[in-house]
Formats: sequence, structure tokens, C-alpha cells
Amino acid sequence: MLVIRVGGGAELDYPALCDDIAAVSARGIDIVLVHGGSHETNRIATALGTPPRFVTSASGHVSRYTDQTAMDSFLMVYAGKINKRIVELLQQRGINAFGCSGLDGQILRAERKATLRIVENGKQLLLRDDRTGTIDGVNSTLLNTLCAAGVLPVIAPIACSHQGDALNVDGDRAAAQIAVALKAETLLLLSSVPGLLSAFPDESTLIRSIPRSDINAYMDVAQGRMKKKVMGAAEALTGGVATVIMADARISNPIKQALDGNGTTIA
Amino acid sequence: MLVIRVGGGAELDYPALCDDIAAVSARGIDIVLVHGGSHETNRIATALGTPPRFVTSASGHVSRYTDQTAMDSFLMVYAGKINKRIVELLQQRGINAFGCSGLDGQILRAERKATLRIVENGKQLLLRDDRTGTIDGVNSTLLNTLCAAGVLPVIAPIACSHQGDALNVDGDRAAAQIAVALKAETLLLLSSVPGLLSAFPDESTLIRSIPRSDINAYMDVAQGRMKKKVMGAAEALTGGVATVIMADARISNPIKQALDGNGTTIA
Repeated sequence: MLVIRVGGGAELDYPALCDDIAAVSARGIDIVLVHGGSHETNRIATALGTPPRFVTSASGHVSRYTDQTAMDSFLMVYAGKINKRIVELLQQRGINAFGCSGLDGQILRAERKATLRIVENGKQLLLRDDRTGTIDGVNSTLLNTLCAAGVLPVIAPIACSHQGDALNVDGDRAAAQIAVALKAETLLLLSSVPGLLSAFPDESTLIRSIPRSDINAYMDVAQGRMKKKVMGAAEALTGGVATVIMADARISNPIKQALDGNGTTIA
Repeated sequence: MLVIRVGGGAELDYPALCDDIAAVSARGIDIVLVHGGSHETNRIATALGTPPRFVTSASGHVSRYTDQTAMDSFLMVYAGKINKRIVELLQQRGINAFGCSGLDGQILRAERKATLRIVENGKQLLLRDDRTGTIDGVNSTLLNTLCAAGVLPVIAPIACSHQGDALNVDGDRAAAQIAVALKAETLLLLSSVPGLLSAFPDESTLIRSIPRSDINAYMDVAQGRMKKKVMGAAEALTGGVATVIMADARISNPIKQALDGNGTTIA
């Protein structure tokens, strides 16, 4: 079992990615795909007159503020356009893909963050209508049932709260939790960088290999979005996933190249 | 097994509908829900600067013209916002709903209409980029697997063509085909009218009961959108569904009231 997470950057070539998924799947490897959609969500939300709002937490972490209007855009783009266009690309390549979100069948359960303490113009504010959460459960029975039925799950990173609400959850950590729950051998985190860089953004400083026992020491090396990937990697390794690879989504054959060692391999 | 189709009109009260689904489901009745979304799709597409285009076929039938831009809006609203907000409403009521479209896992397979001959300003035109189709297969194995897994399927009427393309398909006929494939006892077609009216739009002319052998004679009674419902009803009855009910979606307890005989019952 191979769990692939692909980010939602503007540069992503979905048809090329799906060519590669079809090629890897044809070799008999079971795949679960967790996708992104942030760039397109921002574009659609802005076009609808409700541009995204990003907030900085008291601890300095920047995140999307997801009120109910933002959640509508999030659902439309992640669970609608991106999820179904990926499923369509895979169906066109002979792969019986099956798209859903983690809200569906409670595939991803999460604890809603009741309040979000943010800093704006130097002042602290408390937001109460943010719809984000931290995953605390995966319905592995249902996911295994889907895989056993011969379909390839394509999952939007939206979770179900304990009250039944749709929550925005981090895609990298969602993929990590799914990899653990499905006892996947490999978790592949694809994004718009070649892997973990020791001197971001200099791509010549790619760290090719990290011993699994050293992963936490690399948390400070990771900048911005890469911090979540390193957190996801650490969660996956702790949960029993043998290999985590952070690699480039922008190149041709991104999955094959990552599995061949082009990226940051933690094993 | 009860298959419910609910239209996508502006007047629909989704929370009230989901209250009723939860109540019926609690009585141990298996439910599959097929939803609409046309009103909201029109609103979002217009807000995005790509308003819907409706065309009149050479035979006088009016339909949505679904080119790839329109399909993006269709996917966003049907498979994204509407599908997931219904799933959320059901999850909030303790029902483990599972949303997907008919594209997913090829739950609905359809033959794409290669060309669409339309009449515009008195002239005939041939459209080649329309993405609509006619359902010719249901993946009942996968749907039964989902039902056996204890989830309540919530399905957007989008099908998978034989080439893997997403297709816009009629929701009433999709529900009818699903009811046949799952050997449902009852198909319930809810919309913004009380049922089939002998003198549309006079709601006092509701036809309460139609013998199943007479259904085709009522094709001429049905006006506009109701024609598809009568076609769907006929297809379901021919395929072995015992009872088809056309009833009002706008009232409280719409499912209970329909099952109690408030609507047009064909049995």
C-alpha cells in the first residue's frame, strides 16, 4: 500500500501525475491519493467576492481562516472540482478511481479547535467560528472495504467533527494518519519543492536521506509549509509506516522518481 | 430499500429533509439519496461570470448545455457544496452519510450524447462539446457494498462515460436506475410540486393514484420537468420497483407524508 499526498499548488500537472499513478497502479501496487486545492480555492473564493483570509496564531503559525462562507468555497473546490477532475483523469486512464472526502462515512474524524487565538496588528483576537480541526481517528474499516472493492480512493482533506461538522484539516497530516491506519509501507508527500532543503529555497541543498530516528531534529530545518510535512512524516513513522518520501510534484513521473530516490527519503 | 430523489429547487429546506431522513432511517429502512443542485449551480456559475446556457433540442426539449466550463460549476456545486452540506446535515443528526457522485467507482455509467442538435433563432445548430449522457449501467456491487458497510449513500447525478468523462445526467432517471439496480421497493421523487397535476400549475388537481399499467398514458399530462419524472417512474416500474411516489419536497416531513399517501402514488 502506497499513500500519496499531492499539494494544491498552481504548478501541479494533474494529467502527468495521473499518468504516473496509472503506471504504478498497473504494477499491482495499491494506492490511496490525498489531494490539495488551496491555490484553486483561493482563486474561486476571490472570484465569488469572498477572498481567503489567512490568520497568524499566537504561536506564529499562519493558517487559512475557515468560516462557513470559506467552507463553502473549500467544499466546492476540494470536494467538487479538484476531487472529481482527478477521478475523471484516472477513469480516462482505465483506473476505477473513487473520490470522496474524509467527511464521508467519517473516513477522517477530527476534534474541532473550539477557538483560535490570533494576532492581528499586534493585538490578540479570539476567533470562534473557525472550522478547522485535528484528526483523531480514521475509519480504516470503510477505507479497507473500498480498497477491497477494487477502487482507488481519492480523498479530499475534510474531516467530520464529533458533532458532525465539516472541518478543514491539514492534508499532509491527513495522509499520514491514513497511511498509519491502512498499515501502508510508504507515504509519499509530493509538493512544489524537490524535498527537504537544508537552506530553503536553494534547491541544490536537497537533503537526500534522513535516518528515521533523526526526524525530529529536522523540524527546525523545515520552513513554512514544510513543517507540516515533517510533522506528518514523524507521525507516520511513529505509527509504523516504514518509509516516508518528500519529493517534487512538478516533474514528469513524480511518483516513479520519488520511489527511485529523487527526494528526501526517511527510512 | 427506499431510493429518494430530491430536486434542486430554491425552496428546498435541506435541514427539514434531513430530519425526516434521520427519522425514517431510525425505523430501520435503508435509504439511498440522489440530490439536485440546479438552482445553486445557476447562481454560482453566474457569480463566476459563466452563466448557465439552456438550449432547445430539435424535438423541443429544453436542457442545460454543459461544456467544460459549465461542468466545472456543476462539479463544484453538485459534488462539492450540495453533496457535502447534505452529508454534514445527516452526520449532525447521527446518520453516517457517505457522499459521492456517480462518476466515482463508475456507480453510474452513461453513454455520452456525441452531438446535440439545437434550435436557436429558428436555425438548427449542432453542438459537439456538450457533456451530457444517458445512463446505461449502475455499479450495484459497489453501492451494495457501501450499504452493507452501514453508510447512507448520498449521490450527485454525475455519471462516468465509457471514455471516463464526467457527464451530466438526469437526476430523476438516475434515481430510477439506482432503484432498479438495488431492487428497491420504493422510489420517491420529491420536488417543488405536490405530485402530478392534471391541470398544471393548479395544485388542487393533484392526481393521487395511478395504476402502474396506466403510467405511459400520463406522459402527456406531465408538463416540463415532470416529464422526466414520469419517464423515471415508468423506467423504475418496468425494472421491478413496486411503488413510485411523486410528492412535495417543500413541506415538513416530506418523506413520511409521501409514504402516507400525500402525493401521486403509482403502484
